[in-house]
Amino acid sequence: MVLTTSPASEASSSKASSKLPTQNKIDLANARKKVSFDIVDMTNYIHCGAANVEQRRYIIDLIAKDPIFKKDDWGWLNHTDAVKRGIAMSARLAEIKMEHDLNDLDFATMVEAIDDPLPIILHNGAFIPVVNSQGSDEQIEKWIPLAEKYQIIGCYAQTELGHGSNLSRLETTATFIRDTDEWEINSTSFTAAKWWIGGLGAMCTHAVVQARLFIDGQDYGAHVFVVPLRSLEDHKTFPGIEIGDIGPKAYNGFNKMDNGFARFNGYRIPRENMLMRFSKVSREGVYTKPPHAKLSYGSMVLLRSVLIKQMALYLSRATTVATRYLTVRRQFNNPTSRNDLDVNPNLETQVINYPMVQNRLFPMIAQAYALYAAGSCMMEMYINLMTGLSSGNIDTLGEVHAMSSALKSYCTTIGAAGTEECRKLMGGHGFSYFTGLAHLFASIVPSNTYEGDNYVLTQQMARYLLKEVKTARSNPENVTPFSRYLLRGLNKSALSRETCAVAQPQDWLKPEVQLAAFEHRCARLAYELSDNVDAAEGDKESNAFWSDHNIECYRISHAHAQYVLVLWFIQSIETAQDPEADEERRAQPESVRVLQKLSNLHALHTIQQNLADFVEDGYLNPAQCQSLRAQVKDLVTSLADEAVGLVDAFDHPDFLLNSALGASDGDAYKRLWDKAQSEPLNQRQVCDGYEEYIRPLLKRHGDLKL
Amino acid sequence: MVLTTSPASEASSSKASSKLPTQNKIDLANARKKVSFDIVDMTNYIHCGAANVEQRRYIIDLIAKDPIFKKDDWGWLNHTDAVKRGIAMSARLAEIKMEHDLNDLDFATMVEAIDDPLPIILHNGAFIPVVNSQGSDEQIEKWIPLAEKYQIIGCYAQTELGHGSNLSRLETTATFIRDTDEWEINSTSFTAAKWWIGGLGAMCTHAVVQARLFIDGQDYGAHVFVVPLRSLEDHKTFPGIEIGDIGPKAYNGFNKMDNGFARFNGYRIPRENMLMRFSKVSREGVYTKPPHAKLSYGSMVLLRSVLIKQMALYLSRATTVATRYLTVRRQFNNPTSRNDLDVNPNLETQVINYPMVQNRLFPMIAQAYALYAAGSCMMEMYINLMTGLSSGNIDTLGEVHAMSSALKSYCTTIGAAGTEECRKLMGGHGFSYFTGLAHLFASIVPSNTYEGDNYVLTQQMARYLLKEVKTARSNPENVTPFSRYLLRGLNKSALSRETCAVAQPQDWLKPEVQLAAFEHRCARLAYELSDNVDAAEGDKESNAFWSDHNIECYRISHAHAQYVLVLWFIQSIETAQDPEADEERRAQPESVRVLQKLSNLHALHTIQQNLADFVEDGYLNPAQCQSLRAQVKDLVTSLADEAVGLVDAFDHPDFLLNSALGASDGDAYKRLWDKAQSEPLNQRQVCDGYEEYIRPLLKRHGDLKL
Repeated sequence: MVLTTSPASEASSSKASSKLPTQNKIDLANARKKVSFDIVDMTNYIHCGAANVEQRRYIIDLIAKDPIFKKDDWGWLNHTDAVKRGIAMSARLAEIKMEHDLNDLDFATMVEAIDDPLPIILHNGAFIPVVNSQGSDEQIEKWIPLAEKYQIIGCYAQTELGHGSNLSRLETTATFIRDTDEWEINSTSFTAAKWWIGGLGAMCTHAVVQARLFIDGQDYGAHVFVVPLRSLEDHKTFPGIEIGDIGPKAYNGFNKMDNGFARFNGYRIPRENMLMRFSKVSREGVYTKPPHAKLSYGSMVLLRSVLIKQMALYLSRATTVATRYLTVRRQFNNPTSRNDLDVNPNLETQVINYPMVQNRLFPMIAQAYALYAAGSCMMEMYINLMTGLSSGNIDTLGEVHAMSSALKSYCTTIGAAGTEECRKLMGGHGFSYFTGLAHLFASIVPSNTYEGDNYVLTQQMARYLLKEVKTARSNPENVTPFSRYLLRGLNKSALSRETCAVAQPQDWLKPEVQLAAFEHRCARLAYELSDNVDAAEGDKESNAFWSDHNIECYRISHAHAQYVLVLWFIQSIETAQDPEADEERRAQPESVRVLQKLSNLHALHTIQQNLADFVEDGYLNPAQCQSLRAQVKDLVTSLADEAVGLVDAFDHPDFLLNSALGASDGDAYKRLWDKAQSEPLNQRQVCDGYEEYIRPLLKRHGDLKL
Repeated sequence: MVLTTSPASEASSSKASSKLPTQNKIDLANARKKVSFDIVDMTNYIHCGAANVEQRRYIIDLIAKDPIFKKDDWGWLNHTDAVKRGIAMSARLAEIKMEHDLNDLDFATMVEAIDDPLPIILHNGAFIPVVNSQGSDEQIEKWIPLAEKYQIIGCYAQTELGHGSNLSRLETTATFIRDTDEWEINSTSFTAAKWWIGGLGAMCTHAVVQARLFIDGQDYGAHVFVVPLRSLEDHKTFPGIEIGDIGPKAYNGFNKMDNGFARFNGYRIPRENMLMRFSKVSREGVYTKPPHAKLSYGSMVLLRSVLIKQMALYLSRATTVATRYLTVRRQFNNPTSRNDLDVNPNLETQVINYPMVQNRLFPMIAQAYALYAAGSCMMEMYINLMTGLSSGNIDTLGEVHAMSSALKSYCTTIGAAGTEECRKLMGGHGFSYFTGLAHLFASIVPSNTYEGDNYVLTQQMARYLLKEVKTARSNPENVTPFSRYLLRGLNKSALSRETCAVAQPQDWLKPEVQLAAFEHRCARLAYELSDNVDAAEGDKESNAFWSDHNIECYRISHAHAQYVLVLWFIQSIETAQDPEADEERRAQPESVRVLQKLSNLHALHTIQQNLADFVEDGYLNPAQCQSLRAQVKDLVTSLADEAVGLVDAFDHPDFLLNSALGASDGDAYKRLWDKAQSEPLNQRQVCDGYEEYIRPLLKRHGDLKL
């Protein structure tokens, strides 16, 4: 603090600073003492085994100790400066990967630790996977080694100024030039410019470009091409291409990322640069179509599945920060049923002891746990799918695609909303950059609109369920496990007569009661949509029908996602107590007891948040609504002593959280103070702008002596 | 665009740019043609008369034409640079005010036009009002002329590192020093540092400081003192004070504002610097308490009332941007019940034609209209209150205080959430800084946690309603108009037997049916809370009781706020058609017809969003739920041709919106492109960092020729 103007204030400041911050630390330490389970055991459950926990720590530490990844000045970087930093970080990230020969999982952990999207991440996250999955063996042999050694740096260029979701209307074309055996790439209109492409603005040398393939005037639809963009000698853009950065993003998010644009004007690439694993074009210009139209869905499923896991990480970080800060923040002398005024009557109430705070915060902790379970299950589904696909089995593709879409939509919605809710829970100080949560939100929230807009995407699950309704009616035994609830609706009047089995409040704690409620709701909504189809005039498979019913699609898709999340969390806890289960999936009885509370809270809170869906057809009666609310309140209260332990168990180091208010030692005020001292404005005694602006204003009416 | 590498691409770019953007403009122009009402008439209704509209335009134009207020580079300013800009803008703002001798209303419009909180705004927004309302006549005579001529610049220092809401526990003290007739100001602990104080970090010379007053060791609670901070000669901080800026804020919000901290160490000010309109301390150190404890509530009511009006402005801006962009954005060839594919089958569907989009967007337009009506009504209540107070009448203070608290909580919640929802509605491009909506959100969202946290604040209305319940039981004729619904609950079983009168879907359109639903819900929740009080053990007025019931307080407070918003909107439309009403409140029949649709949509959508509250006690039956949803859908559809006109009517000029995607000409893609070209990264051919980071990475394994 350079503005200190008297020695006395220095003294007072250091004296003062040794006092109250200690209470912050004491508060957090005391909270930890109350936790009823072994945090290490819980951490191992969350991250699927001690080996994973250890490896994750090792990797995060690799990043944390490298000065280029320091986060101290992030709050002051504008986009232009941030991109340069992002490039430096990208290069180091690549070097560490090569130096330590790290695999994809470790690479993902590094990216998690770095905690800001870098210009290089789509090289590993999209360029390499797309070449690997859509390139022929020869193409993989050519490009992948170069990419893995970072001799080329790639990006993935799909979105255009005028088109995002609608791939079939992309306006970038690749026209076969038979004479020279080349493709000519063109941006055929103003809106054809590639836009939003991460890595394109400054860093990459190559792109995988989605372009509509034309041969002899015929349009074969979107295909992917490897397109060199910048010289490997001097990084200049090749003639026929113009490239730039699209500028800053909302909330200062993705500010180290060089999201870019590109326009092509008669730019030529060799024919072999079309990725030809599935579709092919011969030297003669003969087009061979892929054996199955949906084979390229795999990479979409992967991107969406990864997002679910990511939401677990993000929401767990947000709740960690909020829980710790609210444990040390005290405000008002309002005793509650569980506060510690008896310990020290001069202390105000810890904010986390207010029921409203608990009722907002704890369900999000439960959601984070549910998301971890879902992330693992979804990834398992993906791996099974890919194993099947590699042997030509596409049976589960439709289901997995629909599931990943529905879960992506729902999970990224609650992930972003939950992070912002955690920030707001922190009250006034929550608006400081130094909470770390604003940065987190800015990183999460675009996931609501990319990889399929969260509303548009819900059509996938709705379409799938309508097919399953048909299956249920014709071959009920063929209904897939997650749609089995549709069998309840084969008898329409039986479905409409279903009521919730809760007779006493504690019945709400039975998993079968919870699942029955979600199943009933899903079945009802699915059959209502199906009835709409039956009642619709004209072509029921038409786009028009779907457009007119996207509200209903959204409802059923989110209802299904909630059901699956509740189900998977319940199953994960069953596994945790199963002596036959893999060691890394198990948990001690003390952990299981708390996990069950979390699972109950997650299920019942989700019902409460969507109560109308369960009440409006009479499935729940007024008394059950009352007991549901009471049960949620009781569960929340019962978790009060566990909250700090539950977030500690996520095992997020301070480097990752980058939060003055949510650090593991609880010293929130001291850290907030210290961060403020680093503000560059504070390095001068009189602010820049005084002579030019302030003094003339003050002196406008002459000198004033007071 | 300096990266252009071939003359051909230049040609193509200019050729291309003359093509499709025209379609954007055509789309918006076509949409305007369909509007059924006179936009000018609607604008006059919204802004309460043509004179106000004209004056607002005149003032915004004053700002728009001054180069210091240009917004072109805002996306790249970091906090440190932004504060300097903020200081420059502050000085100019003050000069314009003086040059044109503008009143407070015009000053507020200037602040609205500038659209970013400046270091000086709390001088006019808090320092002057506090001195005016809490200073004695002599004090006003001394300080106000200096402040109005900006010979001093003030801020308002209440919040501390450790205390925000809890005024009584502030740790800054003002101790009376009888010998010298002074106050000694001290920060008595580490957490006593003033924190978040706008204007303090760099610009202001004086502060009104909230400090606990001590005389002879006795604590008289928080009082306000005028405290000189910086020399009027050289702007240096006085000895005994240390001051700094608290650093960047979440989402880059408030980044031109120098929110600051201050610590006091034995700092002396004259006794007369205590503001003594209500409380007084004599030369002898004799303390006189204020005639009424709540007299200082007035300024809180004002700040909250202003926020409601501000939310109308903000949400109307967000919906303007989203509506225009979604009108020109086209995606997929999915005909809906109302698209224009018949006009040109090659065009994709306008995104605004998708029902899901309409169902998300149009209710927010309706909310914005409801907020405008509420803003006026709340301000009228405030003015009536102040008129009363000035003649010693405090009868309505409790009601107005509770109302402003409940409305502040609800309206700022929907204002912030709605703005983010508008941004997400815009899909991928919504994440660009150039939408203008991220900046808007960052300006709005702290209102959810300042001037009373939106959750904590709801206790005010709940406490008020419980008093009204008592009044209803003892003197029903004395219940205030807005709590009259409580009379329904005097007979408990009658209240529980109430059911909604909707027999046919169109019954939902009757204002009395809508209001009855809201009244029933409010009455039910209020009596449930009251029953809880009766059932509570121990001291029912205790803080503990309130802490344990803040969830219920939140529910009833928001329910009441929604009721009042629905009521005021309905009343405002009644006035609009009343031939006896003031000219500036009236509207043409074509406008009224659309306003009624908006009011219906606002009321019914609010019910739908909170459906469980209306269903769980049996007030609505399943058929009514169905017809409600259908009615909302129909209302939304019926507004499809009006949307662009409804947002045009808000009359927000392009300068204010500062949005590439929401400008009035609809030329979204062209503007987005042009904005991207201004990115500093695009001013060089090869990015900064290439030689240091990218080239070494690419060459790590030697030279590569491709």
